[in-house]
Amino acid sequence: MSPNTDKISSPGRVKEVSSPANPIVKDIRALFQKKHRDQQRAFIAEGLKLIVDALDQGWTIRTFVHAKTAGDTVSQTAARTVASGGDVLIVPEKILGAITRRDNPQMAIGVFGQRFQSLDEIRLTTGNVWVALDRVRDPGNLGTIIRTADAVGASGIILIGDCTDPFSPETVRATMGSIFSVPVVRCSEAEFTAWTVRASVRLVGTHLEGAVDYRTPEYGDRPMVLLMGNEQQGLTDELAGACETLVRIPQAGRADSLNLAVSCGVMLYEIRRDKLTLAGENPT
Amino acid sequence: MSPNTDKISSPGRVKEVSSPANPIVKDIRALFQKKHRDQQRAFIAEGLKLIVDALDQGWTIRTFVHAKTAGDTVSQTAARTVASGGDVLIVPEKILGAITRRDNPQMAIGVFGQRFQSLDEIRLTTGNVWVALDRVRDPGNLGTIIRTADAVGASGIILIGDCTDPFSPETVRATMGSIFSVPVVRCSEAEFTAWTVRASVRLVGTHLEGAVDYRTPEYGDRPMVLLMGNEQQGLTDELAGACETLVRIPQAGRADSLNLAVSCGVMLYEIRRDKLTLAGENPT
Repeated sequence: MSPNTDKISSPGRVKEVSSPANPIVKDIRALFQKKHRDQQRAFIAEGLKLIVDALDQGWTIRTFVHAKTAGDTVSQTAARTVASGGDVLIVPEKILGAITRRDNPQMAIGVFGQRFQSLDEIRLTTGNVWVALDRVRDPGNLGTIIRTADAVGASGIILIGDCTDPFSPETVRATMGSIFSVPVVRCSEAEFTAWTVRASVRLVGTHLEGAVDYRTPEYGDRPMVLLMGNEQQGLTDELAGACETLVRIPQAGRADSLNLAVSCGVMLYEIRRDKLTLAGENPT
Repeated sequence: MSPNTDKISSPGRVKEVSSPANPIVKDIRALFQKKHRDQQRAFIAEGLKLIVDALDQGWTIRTFVHAKTAGDTVSQTAARTVASGGDVLIVPEKILGAITRRDNPQMAIGVFGQRFQSLDEIRLTTGNVWVALDRVRDPGNLGTIIRTADAVGASGIILIGDCTDPFSPETVRATMGSIFSVPVVRCSEAEFTAWTVRASVRLVGTHLEGAVDYRTPEYGDRPMVLLMGNEQQGLTDELAGACETLVRIPQAGRADSLNLAVSCGVMLYEIRRDKLTLAGENPT
């Protein structure tokens, strides 16, 4: 599971396909199911802008599918795809609709190889933050958190235990392209806790019974990981126990009334409070 | 459209129904479509806990539907429903699945009358905040914002122009019950801007070109409305022009990389910063 298993190979092929029963089309449609995403180690990104952003950030495209009617707008991306060894598939719009299960599909989709980093590839730097999520279940929440991590300049996401797939179409859509710029690590709870000890990580968890106001800690002085728990159950006792600090976001209404992605946004803006200014990121 | 058009009437009826073709069941299923919600001025809430919360907060239930297998857990709610003139429907679990379009439906659903407040019913108090949304489109975003408004103790939500329906099943689910505790107003853009002048509202908008850091203004000194725009387009020029202050949330990555509900959460926690403490709401 190295992040760069795609090799630079001979130029790819360009094919025009009109049948939804075509085997390549069927393989791409299958990427809506986790089983097939895992087998192919691939995922779908929808929309030309997203695909161009991904290529600009050094991702290798396996297959570039575009509508026959897309015209000149896609020619440069098609050429880049072929040059890097990927295939180009030209299809009727209805096949794009069938692949993406949408009435008004984007004119282009890209198939990319999945990338996961390992815990030991993580470089912790003072003043920055990784976000670790324990058994996050909702694809929209995960996608939104990846997007927020990008917005605040967080270093990446660590998925602990049985999390929703970061490469599902619903999650990828919710990231709005940030799936290509935010590194994702996945690990078991035991691997995570062992790593936090090995790497001397400062672990700050959010907890409904946290005793510390989330605005109290000095976040900027050491590299840190923000740890947040499952939507229904919060953190496991083991993970809560592994935290140096358990913080809580005050709430005026009922005890547990914040959406996970919103809590994460509020936390990240607090943690990065001194770093983010309208003039740009404050390096100090 | 008074908020309390449901009259206390004679006791309701209890019926056992086993066919999905039953006309009452069909009327309830129809509430998944906006047209029928508008006609019946009603909506669905799923789950016994939510229904009990709603009743405790003074909402009148029109129909309480529960699974035949639900047993004693629902008897008190059924009795309250009948006593206040509502009907109780006892159905097989598969009908609850058919109504809610879920494989694992909740054991109970409630049909409630919609409530909208009018702009002139709004009582502005110093230190508090209303959230106004211009053409919000995503049901999950709207529901999450209603939930966040509840969490921070905001006074209510104002929906401007063509917004997604606050009473759609998807929005109601995302509110996690806050639909019953957060007042909702809907109005046109012209009605909104006329009201802001008439009521001397302090209007603070978020804008990608806002010149003011969102942490700069003194929010606590006057009653205020936080105004946020459509997911793709932001605020209309008219609404942006009506704002006393246009603020911006700094971002490290690309310009427009925060989800609307996350931005709203970050803004509301900043606006209510001095009011929210772990010891409870600070009244000063």
